[in-house]
Amino acid sequence: MPQANKTEIIDYVKQNGNILDEYIEKLGAFGRVEGGGIIRPVYTPQWLAAREQLVEWMQEAGLSVRTDAVGNLWGKLEGSEPGKSYASGSHLDTVKEGGKYDGGLGILTAIVALRFLNELYGQPKFSLEAVALCEEEGSRFNKTFLGSRAITGTLPAEELDESADAEGISIRQAAETCGCDLSQLEAARRDDLVGFIELHIEQGRLLDDVKREVGIVQAITGTRHMGVTFEGQADHAGTTPMDLRKDALVAAAQAITKIQAIALEMGRPAVATVGQLSVVPGATNIVPALVNITVDIRHSDQAKKETLISRIETACREAAASQGVSVAIEQHQDRVPALMTPAMINLLQSTADELGILNMPMVSGAGHDSQVMVEQIPTGMIFVPSIAGRSHSRAEYTPLTEILPGVALLAQALYKLAY
Amino acid sequence: MPQANKTEIIDYVKQNGNILDEYIEKLGAFGRVEGGGIIRPVYTPQWLAAREQLVEWMQEAGLSVRTDAVGNLWGKLEGSEPGKSYASGSHLDTVKEGGKYDGGLGILTAIVALRFLNELYGQPKFSLEAVALCEEEGSRFNKTFLGSRAITGTLPAEELDESADAEGISIRQAAETCGCDLSQLEAARRDDLVGFIELHIEQGRLLDDVKREVGIVQAITGTRHMGVTFEGQADHAGTTPMDLRKDALVAAAQAITKIQAIALEMGRPAVATVGQLSVVPGATNIVPALVNITVDIRHSDQAKKETLISRIETACREAAASQGVSVAIEQHQDRVPALMTPAMINLLQSTADELGILNMPMVSGAGHDSQVMVEQIPTGMIFVPSIAGRSHSRAEYTPLTEILPGVALLAQALYKLAY
Repeated sequence: MPQANKTEIIDYVKQNGNILDEYIEKLGAFGRVEGGGIIRPVYTPQWLAAREQLVEWMQEAGLSVRTDAVGNLWGKLEGSEPGKSYASGSHLDTVKEGGKYDGGLGILTAIVALRFLNELYGQPKFSLEAVALCEEEGSRFNKTFLGSRAITGTLPAEELDESADAEGISIRQAAETCGCDLSQLEAARRDDLVGFIELHIEQGRLLDDVKREVGIVQAITGTRHMGVTFEGQADHAGTTPMDLRKDALVAAAQAITKIQAIALEMGRPAVATVGQLSVVPGATNIVPALVNITVDIRHSDQAKKETLISRIETACREAAASQGVSVAIEQHQDRVPALMTPAMINLLQSTADELGILNMPMVSGAGHDSQVMVEQIPTGMIFVPSIAGRSHSRAEYTPLTEILPGVALLAQALYKLAY
Repeated sequence: MPQANKTEIIDYVKQNGNILDEYIEKLGAFGRVEGGGIIRPVYTPQWLAAREQLVEWMQEAGLSVRTDAVGNLWGKLEGSEPGKSYASGSHLDTVKEGGKYDGGLGILTAIVALRFLNELYGQPKFSLEAVALCEEEGSRFNKTFLGSRAITGTLPAEELDESADAEGISIRQAAETCGCDLSQLEAARRDDLVGFIELHIEQGRLLDDVKREVGIVQAITGTRHMGVTFEGQADHAGTTPMDLRKDALVAAAQAITKIQAIALEMGRPAVATVGQLSVVPGATNIVPALVNITVDIRHSDQAKKETLISRIETACREAAASQGVSVAIEQHQDRVPALMTPAMINLLQSTADELGILNMPMVSGAGHDSQVMVEQIPTGMIFVPSIAGRSHSRAEYTPLTEILPGVALLAQALYKLAY
């Protein structure tokens, strides 16, 4: 590869990066609702319109554009040596009333990075691609990672017909309204991809708190969702002495208190969250008979995640027993932790150091397409700050000055891989 | 008074009491819904039909019948000396899907007691009345004690127009559909009533647990309802470390655990119940931002009730502070404890002892018309057992054999007062 001056890319990004501000605003207008949030589920008209906008920007960047069977959009800077390709990108869909940065930023920074590399250095040795992954959030079909699973060949064709949205429209039916040809699903698999880098907002506040420019993701956390039901006995709140009650809510409250204590004691990156709680019968003057809680448990180390789960289960059982209440624990979603590819971690970290970009190793507490990609393809992730950690919210925000170091890192890393 | 043989009334009640079984079944059919619960709010067709049934039974008992302005039904056994009257009864309305015994039993036992006294001893010296109080539960208008407040002259006329049910029908409008003449509200006041005894199911399990036949109510508990709001911050459950959270649900859980501990520590009859809890945003993967709980606090000693409230408020504030969460406490309903009239307590207790009825002093954890009556009229209450403490439920049950000792006590006490 030709040796790029190490500050060249930084300077070029600084001088030309403001194009990203325009892109972010324009992309964020697709699916915007009153109040400022964005609702852009996969295969909706606003999703399709956003993708058409990306086609235009990819072409302006000098990329040749195509879509695959599930609707991933690819913009390619053809290399001089065929057969190998490096890609960068993220997902185009949003959560319900999400922000402008989650997913979209990773697509736009990939397009801009390839554009700048093309402008500075012309044709690469190996192909470089920017990709808008069709779906990651699960906000329409309650299935996640449609785009990255198609690329890695891990999306079962049956799922396209079995999974439907709230109106009963299957993935296949919805995709076909956007011109997807799902009979070509297998062709969406990309065995020629030899590297993937995803830039994403952190969605947490750690980078913002310690004022680092980028995070180098070491691992994406493993997640277990549990449903815990405490069943006691409804009793009159006035006529039943405290010592004769079987109060399901007191049992749940003890469990919630203990769950926090366990996760705190294990230390970062262990997290455990009770986000939902329902009470039956739920009357002011009736002792609660039935309480359901959800527990979201995450750790980037699989063994520690299992320990965390086991301790939380024990805490729920002990809390129930202390109140004479029965308990039932259901295991729902389970994702094992995904370690990013060591070579990619090293590349990103050393490149950041060379460029003088303040960086730190991080664990992603949220899920990302990279956890699917890394199963088949050497993968790395760059986090840029989220102001005050706001995410999955219209309040999501990262100023351009805090995005550009990540863009420079992305571009320089891709340069090292492909030129 | 003529000296009644102390076992005479017991024998008579045993021989003739099975009429109550028929009455309980028939009265329980008015407002019965599928599944067996009873919905009989005041001034509904089923309430009116039930009252018409009571008229028939009162007449069969030899009572002269009338209704007053709010729809209380009175059946009178005229005394030989005018101007003084003793009454017994309870309320005709039910909670939503309540049982056959709550309220209704106190009316039926009053009718039966007067019938038996009339049959055994003829005309009393002072008048005896059985009363079906129109409303106590607050299940239609969210106002309680309409019947007893009219009798004691403590029901403001404005309330009749200001309070409406879920369909916007005012108390006055609803009452008029049942033939009530609310312009005569003041005439419903009964300054000539010199004693009131209410027989009621316990609605708790204490009598059933210790196998006593009746409870002699010493006091009706004071109640405070509070609403407590914990406000923290919504955060991503994956990307926000435990130590950086402001989790409103953890704060609420700590408060709930502490509330139970405080009430347990104060001992019977202190009770404190968190019956409702809501979480915002209430998503599996979002740290709770806002949690509302209700707290129902009861004690029969006003000073201890205030101590209990104060300690619970402190616990809520400490729980919030420990999580960096703000807290707001709203005081809703407040009822001071009502002590039953000592002369009535003594009468009931000594009469029970004389009759060989196993009795014990009790505090009522639930509210009753007697707490209103006692403000103006010497009042006492007799509890009969609730099997397994079931109440406000279709499962409410007391077998005839466990009702009859209370009927004998009621009849003998009324005999002592009026003959």
